[in-house]
Amino acid sequence: MGPKLREAQNKLMRGLLDLVILQFLKSNPMHGYQIIVSIRKNFGVYFGPSTIYPLLASLEEKGYIKSQWDLGNDRPRKVYSLTPEGMSTLSCTEESLNHICRKLLTIGMDRLWLNNGLQRGQIYPTVKAAPK
Amino acid sequence: MGPKLREAQNKLMRGLLDLVILQFLKSNPMHGYQIIVSIRKNFGVYFGPSTIYPLLASLEEKGYIKSQWDLGNDRPRKVYSLTPEGMSTLSCTEESLNHICRKLLTIGMDRLWLNNGLQRGQIYPTVKAAPK
Repeated sequence: MGPKLREAQNKLMRGLLDLVILQFLKSNPMHGYQIIVSIRKNFGVYFGPSTIYPLLASLEEKGYIKSQWDLGNDRPRKVYSLTPEGMSTLSCTEESLNHICRKLLTIGMDRLWLNNGLQRGQIYPTVKAAPK
Repeated sequence: MGPKLREAQNKLMRGLLDLVILQFLKSNPMHGYQIIVSIRKNFGVYFGPSTIYPLLASLEEKGYIKSQWDLGNDRPRKVYSLTPEGMSTLSCTEESLNHICRKLLTIGMDRLWLNNGLQRGQIYPTVKAAPK
């Protein structure tokens, strides 16, 4: 894959990171490093701590996730979990994403229909009446 | 819809704007204002000229779209169309989006399976052997 294409895919994924993180936390509380690993494992793209930690802080500030120190390991870790508000945001955002994906599929068809309706004669040549 | 939810949906849509614009241009060359109107009409969100024009310039710089002045109207308009490179980027990005959407659906199930496999004993209590 060329670097430009990789960039396009990273940009797409970056736009969906909030949603992806909320979805991960829906079933299980996770700490930051687990999230980083899970994104790479599931989506094949790497977003490092400098991307993920500020995003987690912003999601926490918005009240979508909450954090708690887990002191049961060799070193303390901040564990994030979904709040009820995060849960409802996740549902709505997933619904939006589905809506957007469906719309993306139909845009081509809508426009095809428009063309066949001869609304854009400059692209598909219009049939003109023979000169009298 | 609350302002925070609206913000979450706008952020999602903003992340998909490149893809949406390329998809619009796949069937028809369009000028900037048509794109703005089409986004609002199809997706119910408004992104103004200050968002769309820089995005068009950046897509053109990357070689995904090209522009041409249309002088056939009351005022000259820059009309954008998809390049072959834009077309192949669109296909790949749509494929990525499909992949991400499918993955998002299965994350919940994967994690459920993980839990049932008792890989995360700290979240679901592990059954311990009775002390001898």
